[in-house]
Amino acid sequence: MTTLADIGEARIIERFKSMTAPATDVITGIGDDCAVVRPSPDSDIDLVLTSDAVIEGVHFATGTDPVEVGHKAMGRALSDLAAMAAEPLWGLLDLAAPPDMPADAAEGLFAAANRLATRHGLSIVGGDSSSTTSLSVHVFCVGRVPSGAAFLRSNAKPGDSLCVTGQLGGSINGKHLAIEPRVAQGIWLRTHSFASCAIDISDGLVRDLYRICSSSQTGATLQLRDLPISADARNSRDNRPPLDHALHDGEDYELLFSVPADIVPTLLTEWQSAFDIPLTVIGRVTENTGVIDGVNEDGSTVELNDLGYDQFKADNV
Amino acid sequence: MTTLADIGEARIIERFKSMTAPATDVITGIGDDCAVVRPSPDSDIDLVLTSDAVIEGVHFATGTDPVEVGHKAMGRALSDLAAMAAEPLWGLLDLAAPPDMPADAAEGLFAAANRLATRHGLSIVGGDSSSTTSLSVHVFCVGRVPSGAAFLRSNAKPGDSLCVTGQLGGSINGKHLAIEPRVAQGIWLRTHSFASCAIDISDGLVRDLYRICSSSQTGATLQLRDLPISADARNSRDNRPPLDHALHDGEDYELLFSVPADIVPTLLTEWQSAFDIPLTVIGRVTENTGVIDGVNEDGSTVELNDLGYDQFKADNV
Repeated sequence: MTTLADIGEARIIERFKSMTAPATDVITGIGDDCAVVRPSPDSDIDLVLTSDAVIEGVHFATGTDPVEVGHKAMGRALSDLAAMAAEPLWGLLDLAAPPDMPADAAEGLFAAANRLATRHGLSIVGGDSSSTTSLSVHVFCVGRVPSGAAFLRSNAKPGDSLCVTGQLGGSINGKHLAIEPRVAQGIWLRTHSFASCAIDISDGLVRDLYRICSSSQTGATLQLRDLPISADARNSRDNRPPLDHALHDGEDYELLFSVPADIVPTLLTEWQSAFDIPLTVIGRVTENTGVIDGVNEDGSTVELNDLGYDQFKADNV
Repeated sequence: MTTLADIGEARIIERFKSMTAPATDVITGIGDDCAVVRPSPDSDIDLVLTSDAVIEGVHFATGTDPVEVGHKAMGRALSDLAAMAAEPLWGLLDLAAPPDMPADAAEGLFAAANRLATRHGLSIVGGDSSSTTSLSVHVFCVGRVPSGAAFLRSNAKPGDSLCVTGQLGGSINGKHLAIEPRVAQGIWLRTHSFASCAIDISDGLVRDLYRICSSSQTGATLQLRDLPISADARNSRDNRPPLDHALHDGEDYELLFSVPADIVPTLLTEWQSAFDIPLTVIGRVTENTGVIDGVNEDGSTVELNDLGYDQFKADNV
């Protein structure tokens, strides 16, 4: 009997996708950070829909401050909107909680989600509550982009430069609970016409880059010495090198996007005026479909597989 | 320390609601079956947003056929859209499942949700998957109504007649897994201008009627002998009378709505031509704010409290 663990997240999502029929009002269905739908054929906006879960024992440890849980739940969904360059509009929050959860803790969780939402212009307008044995939160968000302007994983072109916001790796040491979704950065990249393809790094740089390559039918090279490795990755006390953390750790929630190579200098200059967070060029999109090569300092290359976090597999790195 | 069980679902939702700020694009926020939002100030449509969860051990027993779980998950969310008289458009499905779940079972679950969605014109466009110890499904749906036309719990007027679709009670014996959301009926009631206030009965007739009364600042009387009591309620083997099941059992997923009394005869005639499922006039909206009286066959009355299903309380009937 084949289980979810046997086939992994990517293949079960592919199977789900194969069951859904195309519809004229669905621009992008299952398989990107968000779905993109068109409210009417002549609409000048598209709506961007996403859902995300945080589950006790999976996305946060038992005993985690509910304030951090609420922040993370909303942050993950907002990060998906950021990856589509969407303006956040409305959200729903489903709380599944044990009946003996202190009411103040539940309020603290909701308040934290609401604070982060408000900061990014999103109104929480509803949701659902259920009594369970362990805590989980599902957040659904609706965002908006001008028609046809959502960033798609399939928009990368060979020759494009690959850029990443912030720093990578080691997020398990704390950053995963303190997500700062790159909403403003996504919108800025769209309104300044720098990018049209992005993903938020939730399951590891290589795995998420592989998703871009797979959707765009491209490959990629990464300049390994250029990767912005976080202090958390450098200070990690396991025996994995910091570079390995930066390549494969999940939950960075940074934006990975592609940019036509000739406008990179302008992008870097204007970015510095607009934002405090770093932006780093880390590689390039290639025609070598499905292959991601890491380039070492000496010019030698190593093929990187798509190891990273898979929801259902037990052999996650 | 006050827990969720101490204060109950209604009060925690009130507390969440009090934390959210009004926004001009939010027509109805937390506190109805769905949220109603307006995509732009001059939009001729409103969007209706809802989310619902089904959780192992709460909404279905361990070992339930995943096909029934998928159907119920989508059915509950569609039932919320029905209560707002909304046309279903798009949905997201979050699957939280144990990694040893057979892939075929997960596919069966998704296929059942997708079948019901398709039947009601809704496209599943995305979602999320997580690895957990027990099975749960959260469904998020977007629907559409002409601007200002969503059915609201607050629209009941003293003197209106109260009507209910189908039959009530005993749904735990099977109907709760085989929901037929009253989507077509909700839309029909709107387009024929019969109703403007509805709720889907998810937590028991009295409790959900109380929600209408509370939102509308009205009361209600129920003609107890007129209630359409289901065969499952009549054949229930516990020691509760069938009427008690019809009044208080959760998960009927029928529409309860109010209609100006003078158009009830027309409604009943036209309904019979349009639908096979029964429609019953069960009572009337009153000015007696917050009080629901049951009228016995002999004309005596009994005040009905709002007992019904509360997610967090242990003393559910």
